[in-house]
Amino acid sequence: MKLTEETISKEVIYSGSIIDLEKHKVQLPNGNTSEREIVLHNGAVSVLAITPENEVIVVEQFRKAMEKTLIEIPAGKLEVGEERESAAKRELEEETGYIADKLELIGEVYGCPGFCNEKVSIYIAKDLKEGKVNLDEDEFLHLSKIPIDNIKSLLLSQEIEDAKTLIAFQYLLLNYNHSK
Amino acid sequence: MKLTEETISKEVIYSGSIIDLEKHKVQLPNGNTSEREIVLHNGAVSVLAITPENEVIVVEQFRKAMEKTLIEIPAGKLEVGEERESAAKRELEEETGYIADKLELIGEVYGCPGFCNEKVSIYIAKDLKEGKVNLDEDEFLHLSKIPIDNIKSLLLSQEIEDAKTLIAFQYLLLNYNHSK
Repeated sequence: MKLTEETISKEVIYSGSIIDLEKHKVQLPNGNTSEREIVLHNGAVSVLAITPENEVIVVEQFRKAMEKTLIEIPAGKLEVGEERESAAKRELEEETGYIADKLELIGEVYGCPGFCNEKVSIYIAKDLKEGKVNLDEDEFLHLSKIPIDNIKSLLLSQEIEDAKTLIAFQYLLLNYNHSK
Repeated sequence: MKLTEETISKEVIYSGSIIDLEKHKVQLPNGNTSEREIVLHNGAVSVLAITPENEVIVVEQFRKAMEKTLIEIPAGKLEVGEERESAAKRELEEETGYIADKLELIGEVYGCPGFCNEKVSIYIAKDLKEGKVNLDEDEFLHLSKIPIDNIKSLLLSQEIEDAKTLIAFQYLLLNYNHSK
């Protein structure tokens, strides 16, 4: 059975600064019709950045949708037309003050695939150099560094609630000894 | 510095079947104001289900937001007022035909925390019994089973693009030998 849903018509409900919202009327594989609510996002990048002291850099940031702060690896939205690896280097430096000459792609994931096309690229960066923090004007965060030896117990505590950060930390436990 | 953003006012832009969209005017930590676009979702559950033959059950499903099929662990939306573990058992049986008496929570994550409050609970289920597949009328999927021994190479291939599924598979590699 073919799984594809063909778009019969679409309605733009909202066109915003971070997201757009559309409603698509679709033809299902069995010929019936249904509606899909679609959130469109330009995409995001994130960096698992490891300091020369074997620490992971994290940012604590207030997330309005959940009304609480989350611990996350440095991340940000792609600008229109921006190349993903450049965006990741830019976000890392803006949020943490660290410069990475070389990034390695760990994975690219959809966090909410049921309704949103936001793809997050997750990179790992080693051999960091000091640069200069330069936050967006509506961005406020606490920077901290976690020794790699503490990541395992942090995961067990289930304090990491951000999907990309959990993926990056599990990747670290699975691979870091081999990639040093 | 306090990171909290206080809501000054909110506007409901869209109230839909899966998501609602709001725009919040907020006061930033420095006293300035800004706007946040917020997608509200009732939450979701997912299950890393392991058969007696040491296979992981996955579903291939067309995701309209990305216009492609993704390989995911069985998952679904919480119904209003529904308890998460019950929802996970229900979704597992509806999508795969397998019944799990006991689930263990692996983690709970936000996939798109920058703008969406959708929290996905990820459970692991072993000791499965045969039940009966019963899909929603607008749900179409291909069911398959992946031997646990193949999960590592599947992760390396970067074919898994769904965040919750990647988290579950990494968890399996990190923990399964110990939890058998």
